[in-house]
Amino acid sequence: MSDLLARTARYVAIPSVSGEERALADEVEASLRAVAGLDVTRVGDNVIARTTGSRMSRIMLAGHLDTVPGDASAMRLGAAEVVGLGACDMKGSLAVMVELALNAGAGFATEVSWCFFAREEISRVHSGLLEIAAVDPKLLAADVAVLCEPTGCVVEAGCQGTLRAELVLRGARAHTARPWRGRNAIHRLIEPLEAIRAYEPRAVTIDGVTFTEQCQAVLVNGGVSANVVPDEVRLTINQRVAPDRSTREAAAVLRALVAAYLDEGDSFEVVDAAEPALPQLAHPTIARLVELSGSAPRAKLGYTDVATFASFGVPAVNFGAGDPELAHHAGESVDATDLARCFEVLGLLLEG
Amino acid sequence: MSDLLARTARYVAIPSVSGEERALADEVEASLRAVAGLDVTRVGDNVIARTTGSRMSRIMLAGHLDTVPGDASAMRLGAAEVVGLGACDMKGSLAVMVELALNAGAGFATEVSWCFFAREEISRVHSGLLEIAAVDPKLLAADVAVLCEPTGCVVEAGCQGTLRAELVLRGARAHTARPWRGRNAIHRLIEPLEAIRAYEPRAVTIDGVTFTEQCQAVLVNGGVSANVVPDEVRLTINQRVAPDRSTREAAAVLRALVAAYLDEGDSFEVVDAAEPALPQLAHPTIARLVELSGSAPRAKLGYTDVATFASFGVPAVNFGAGDPELAHHAGESVDATDLARCFEVLGLLLEG
Repeated sequence: MSDLLARTARYVAIPSVSGEERALADEVEASLRAVAGLDVTRVGDNVIARTTGSRMSRIMLAGHLDTVPGDASAMRLGAAEVVGLGACDMKGSLAVMVELALNAGAGFATEVSWCFFAREEISRVHSGLLEIAAVDPKLLAADVAVLCEPTGCVVEAGCQGTLRAELVLRGARAHTARPWRGRNAIHRLIEPLEAIRAYEPRAVTIDGVTFTEQCQAVLVNGGVSANVVPDEVRLTINQRVAPDRSTREAAAVLRALVAAYLDEGDSFEVVDAAEPALPQLAHPTIARLVELSGSAPRAKLGYTDVATFASFGVPAVNFGAGDPELAHHAGESVDATDLARCFEVLGLLLEG
Repeated sequence: MSDLLARTARYVAIPSVSGEERALADEVEASLRAVAGLDVTRVGDNVIARTTGSRMSRIMLAGHLDTVPGDASAMRLGAAEVVGLGACDMKGSLAVMVELALNAGAGFATEVSWCFFAREEISRVHSGLLEIAAVDPKLLAADVAVLCEPTGCVVEAGCQGTLRAELVLRGARAHTARPWRGRNAIHRLIEPLEAIRAYEPRAVTIDGVTFTEQCQAVLVNGGVSANVVPDEVRLTINQRVAPDRSTREAAAVLRALVAAYLDEGDSFEVVDAAEPALPQLAHPTIARLVELSGSAPRAKLGYTDVATFASFGVPAVNFGAGDPELAHHAGESVDATDLARCFEVLGLLLEG
């Protein structure tokens, strides 16, 4: 069994749902501190390691420590794959990043930084990257960044933005034996849900890669008790936003989608938004990564911190192990071939 | 201000959401223990008081101590009414019951029992009446029972049954940027909700009074997090059942209403059911109560423990202070005129 597979399994076995990354951060930090010539900094549940030579450029490898909620105990280590919560998104790539760090300075043509950060899978305001930037933005300085999100070892360019909106529909309470005295807020869900379900994904091609927007109802909650006509229901909607427009513009379109069903007292509010980032396929390091990958690049459909690095002035791209279509599935997995391929391509990139 | 109004206000000022009736039970028990000639028994948060003479018949007055959830602090005592959570359902009638007990034995033509019980507004398995029956069924023995639920001092005959069903719709998780990999369980709510909203109330006339069934979605809950296509949603449905059929028959009809939208892995389950009770308008005491009320009787649309007493072999009827259409509203109220009328009619009934 490869070191990469064993390390991935070790990381999957350490639960790290958003906000509970401490144990995994401890594990990663300990490995990095054992590497000579690396400057390691701990900021909360984030870990940053940097080579300290004098080469002219610096490449950042970055990845998040957290997973979505789920059953972390169902991990399974096979001869050629790891199955379990976070295996694909993105503990396989974290293992690759750490294994590259264990070879730090061997034959690198560039300075290298590694950033392992917390709380990527929840509201952006809690992001570990923002926490690091608030403490010391120099920790994130680099000429280019590779976000090691799962891409199946294909360069995924840019990223779509994402916004979360909360729709609150009101009603009036009454005894359920006399519902004509009230107004059922849950029954009012039908039309907005129909509008969301009927949403036609919007596709946009930029720099030869195609972004596809999506709209999904993701959370619903309403009601008082079993014999009361409910006076409120809350529906959370997630809209993905292509990089040809801002989340503000997309929110206006989403609001228009449900506006016809809003009455006095109802509300539609954007509670979280993260801007998209344009592809950076002309950047020389990114072009080199595309070449090393041996595959045509494609658009990143999910939100990633490529956009955060872009906001810090660092061009960034997504490249990592694991099939992106497996992310957030109960039985997500990553295989040894993909881990080895990711390790090889990134190693070649760092060796120049 | 009348004693009835003041006592109602005192009871409304003591919060007693289902399961938290202790303080109100203490207050009622203390008043009853001060009455000479009453045998008072405390069972959990239930209080039973009984005259101990040798008259040939016994009338039971019964009422529940609990309220639905809500803001109990918003109580307002006016010159002629009390406004606040539980004022109408049914602390006004509890005040009438206690004031009648304070006159216990004055000129009663019958033995009288008073039963103040807990947890009526929640799942029937928690009912205080069942708790009393389990400890000592003789505490509930009577020839006839008057449930003092709010009826506006009109006899409400029988009661509708009620059933609570839980519909669970499944989906498949996926990242919301790639929803075609999953199946959105929340989007699947549309068709069952449409079927429920389109339900036509079913009306049935028995003994000259008309029962009207209703069907309402009352609780909804689903979703994992803001960037995951939800794999489960739970919808709770409340169906009211007229006394010409059982809750079992009604559940089969409700199941048929949504069956077309159930896929493999989904479920429809009855989680709570309480049988309806037929009107008892030929019973002499109930006929006398109708006469004293001065109004034509009508069908009770809500579920009440008339059905529980029926199951114990005690014919029962609903009669109490407060407009039943105000029950479970945020600003429910009861007025002094209605309290006085209830006190007078029940007093005359007990005096024979």
